[in-house]
Amino acid sequence: AGLGGIGLDTSRELVKRDLKNLVILDRIDNPAAIAELKAINPKVTVTFYPYDVTTPLAETTKLLKTIFAQLKTVDVLINGAGILDDHQIERTIAVNFTGLVNTTTAILDFWDKRKGGPGGVICNIGSVTGFNAIYQVPVYSASKAAVVSFTQYIAKLANITGVTAFTVNPGITKTTLVHKFNSWLDVEPRVAEKLDEHPTQTTLSCAQNFVKAIELNQNGAIWKLDLGTLEPIQWT
Amino acid sequence: AGLGGIGLDTSRELVKRDLKNLVILDRIDNPAAIAELKAINPKVTVTFYPYDVTTPLAETTKLLKTIFAQLKTVDVLINGAGILDDHQIERTIAVNFTGLVNTTTAILDFWDKRKGGPGGVICNIGSVTGFNAIYQVPVYSASKAAVVSFTQYIAKLANITGVTAFTVNPGITKTTLVHKFNSWLDVEPRVAEKLDEHPTQTTLSCAQNFVKAIELNQNGAIWKLDLGTLEPIQWT
Repeated sequence: AGLGGIGLDTSRELVKRDLKNLVILDRIDNPAAIAELKAINPKVTVTFYPYDVTTPLAETTKLLKTIFAQLKTVDVLINGAGILDDHQIERTIAVNFTGLVNTTTAILDFWDKRKGGPGGVICNIGSVTGFNAIYQVPVYSASKAAVVSFTQYIAKLANITGVTAFTVNPGITKTTLVHKFNSWLDVEPRVAEKLDEHPTQTTLSCAQNFVKAIELNQNGAIWKLDLGTLEPIQWT
Repeated sequence: AGLGGIGLDTSRELVKRDLKNLVILDRIDNPAAIAELKAINPKVTVTFYPYDVTTPLAETTKLLKTIFAQLKTVDVLINGAGILDDHQIERTIAVNFTGLVNTTTAILDFWDKRKGGPGGVICNIGSVTGFNAIYQVPVYSASKAAVVSFTQYIAKLANITGVTAFTVNPGITKTTLVHKFNSWLDVEPRVAEKLDEHPTQTTLSCAQNFVKAIELNQNGAIWKLDLGTLEPIQWT
């Protein structure tokens, strides 16, 4: 899990549950947020590791080795790092898509039943733009379409790897991500303002549905989390 | 255009048409192939520039500046670079997706009607795996899903940029690409052999339909080129 807008509220909801451990991986530490999470439920051990999803696969494997050694078992991986800025093509794809693929690939080393692993659950954060695109940010939208596709394929491979996967796809949510961002080649200079005119949801209602989706734990599901609702999507 | 299996046969078909110029961009020069293309129709000027799609955007812009200065006008860009090897995650995404986005973004600088450009046509090569995935290569398949998505969004922006776009999506074709390749985490070690058991098409029949799709020139079209047929796909 992470400490972004949706990530922090989702972590708040998660620690209210009967959880043993919550490991937060994010680029930037936020000791106040970690302390708050620890205070919500002292029975949950909350730990933080700095992690940039754009680091090479081998580095991620090293970090996971440390985490698995400490916790013994890890049940769920939530891949939530994301940026929205179509002026930054390489970085958008590296964070939203490549980083998620690398992190997923790295954890398979510990979970894959072909290697004697116990299996596990991967929860990838897509976006409603993966299937209802915001054309003004085609790089972001395509990177999220790739996330949804990739996750569907991983879900189909669960019989081989023992690892199941699903996506949660938030609609427009009141986060810093959508507060201000650039469209591709400035095709719509007022894209952030225009999005703000749409109905949106709070990070809290999004986070509550996020945790519901995790609890439902359906392999191959594509959950749409929009306007405070949780809805399964059929996608070809 | 390029000089790979489908690329070379498509170039052969293209120079048979009433074309003024054909510019080939590929990583590796192939003087014999260029000479052959020149011999097919001496009225077409065939030129080659070395180009790696993973070079940064600014380098691509420089190369395009040279090409536009030489040709005055460029009508169609074909983005065809692709690799199939799910052991190479970063490179698969860099070549198949990021490279295509960067090349598309770079040429907009010359074509964009908001800058006084004449518009243009972008033909991106996806794959049937973009919508009918080969799950054993989830990274490749997701990178192609991203290509199809990205192209659809660019097509929707044509009213702003003056640049139209469509994809051609070959099915399994007898190329070196599918002769031997790795599945993701070796989930199916015999993936190439298994694909070979499926009916396939030749690069020639694929190339003929490819050129047909270019001639039809429909903004937003998703062309499926499989088993020697050309078929429009509806995709949500």
